[in-house]
Amino acid sequence: GDPQAAEAARARQNALTKPPGSLGRLEALATFMAAWHGTDRPVINKAQALVFAGNHGICAQGVNPYPQDVTAQMVANFEAGGAAINQLCRANGADLSVVALDLDRPTGDFTEGPAMSEAETLAAMNRGAAAVDPGADVLILGEMGIGNSTIAAALAAAIFGGDVARWVGPGTGADAEGLKRKVDVIERGLARHDGLKGNAPALLAALGGREQAAICGAVLAARAACIPVILDGFICTAAVAPLHGASPALLDHCLAGHVSAEPGHRLLLEAMGKEPVLSFDMRLGEGSGAALALGILRAALECHNGMATFGEAGVSEA
Amino acid sequence: GDPQAAEAARARQNALTKPPGSLGRLEALATFMAAWHGTDRPVINKAQALVFAGNHGICAQGVNPYPQDVTAQMVANFEAGGAAINQLCRANGADLSVVALDLDRPTGDFTEGPAMSEAETLAAMNRGAAAVDPGADVLILGEMGIGNSTIAAALAAAIFGGDVARWVGPGTGADAEGLKRKVDVIERGLARHDGLKGNAPALLAALGGREQAAICGAVLAARAACIPVILDGFICTAAVAPLHGASPALLDHCLAGHVSAEPGHRLLLEAMGKEPVLSFDMRLGEGSGAALALGILRAALECHNGMATFGEAGVSEA
Repeated sequence: GDPQAAEAARARQNALTKPPGSLGRLEALATFMAAWHGTDRPVINKAQALVFAGNHGICAQGVNPYPQDVTAQMVANFEAGGAAINQLCRANGADLSVVALDLDRPTGDFTEGPAMSEAETLAAMNRGAAAVDPGADVLILGEMGIGNSTIAAALAAAIFGGDVARWVGPGTGADAEGLKRKVDVIERGLARHDGLKGNAPALLAALGGREQAAICGAVLAARAACIPVILDGFICTAAVAPLHGASPALLDHCLAGHVSAEPGHRLLLEAMGKEPVLSFDMRLGEGSGAALALGILRAALECHNGMATFGEAGVSEA
Repeated sequence: GDPQAAEAARARQNALTKPPGSLGRLEALATFMAAWHGTDRPVINKAQALVFAGNHGICAQGVNPYPQDVTAQMVANFEAGGAAINQLCRANGADLSVVALDLDRPTGDFTEGPAMSEAETLAAMNRGAAAVDPGADVLILGEMGIGNSTIAAALAAAIFGGDVARWVGPGTGADAEGLKRKVDVIERGLARHDGLKGNAPALLAALGGREQAAICGAVLAARAACIPVILDGFICTAAVAPLHGASPALLDHCLAGHVSAEPGHRLLLEAMGKEPVLSFDMRLGEGSGAALALGILRAALECHNGMATFGEAGVSEA
């Protein structure tokens, strides 16, 4: 980000007709946008939302109660406009694109080998990068993939360590037995694929997920274009954990749109030093929490750009 | 509210293309709106925002660093479109009206006598009630009045008791000395006006605030018209504490839009059993937190009404 633009935005906030600091985090969001847009008056003309979808060999281990067909069915639902993310993008003015990544060719089961080859991993990262509109003023990221809360917990555990159980939650609806199965599957995966923490592409290849690799590619492409990113919930945040493992600063342009009800998400955000915009007990994915946070970001910029200063309004200061 | 409409809305939420409960509090907000609109498909066509402004004799005790003229200056700023509430109402589609209540005739200093006569109190309540548009689908309430964080703390302490210091915060910018002065002023006020807890109009008259009385009038008028209300921060919430003292159920149609940085607000919401929609460290008043929450409420209804069901979308259930 541009520290001079951020400083100028902060000075403007202190001149607006309100007690200094009284817009709370809305002020910090405006300053964040100023830094990444390189101007004291950042605006959102074009908000892009990208949802990446993938299928996962790990489903062979019985980690999810839904059949894998649901991934393609939900992609069709996104394309028909019937999902939550469609409504949230419309409500908050984001252009939604869905990128289905080889759904008929699930990744490998990471308990038996790497989820993806290096070539597959890089191809998915490139798909993610290529999907980013360089003219976007903000990028919302989301995902869909039956079984991918197991992928997320595996990535989080690989980067941040500790008991695997800390990172495992019910996802779309695992019961106590399902949770134990997820923990066991992840422990076996981590034992097989060890020592990859600093190597983001290798870690993505090992534990997988095409949508996770695509999210990393999109985050890096957005960074190169100075486009601020709003991350979604546990799975989206865990997808970029490998980038954090390589260098935490790679995520400085990323906001956490919300903290989800999936218990590992709060831990993950704390480990990554990200304060979520919203806390709403959501646990849907699809980018839904990030799209909801876009409305807050828009409101922050409306205040920042639209309010009068004390001088302009003729209001006395304290 | 209408329990049958709420039940039908809940059934619809469980049929939508998402794991049950995965939209978190958005689901509860949709059900809340269904109950008060008496339909399983509530919509917000018209959102009204009302900001009531008043001046306070208590300012003679030096409880606020800003001059009282700022109340009228900020009303002019609202009318010119330069304040935060203007931007937030535009961003979230609310029609804003500002009602200035006899600004050139501040209430009495409650340490020396009642703030208002009974007739003045009822007139202000009636002004509030008359300002409510009976065709509104949701009502956002806010206030402006130099010195009114002292009024708010006095009302909260009168209803919920405990150390006065628990209810006193910096408001627009009191320092440590200012806080002590506020506590002392309120203790003297409460000693003078005792035993009014169950009598809302008498309590409003004693401790005052025309804008507090107007907010109570508007809340009751909205209740009669089954219009859900979004309350703003500490001062707006404390304004309706006298109604809670009379009967907590009088506030069942009210959401807490946010929890403010003013320390008494969290205590007040806990005492009133209200979970805030947002927590954003805001402390501006004007209805700003309530108007921000309107965007979330709109998003909740967009999901509720716009999403496909599993059957409609042909998505397999678990």
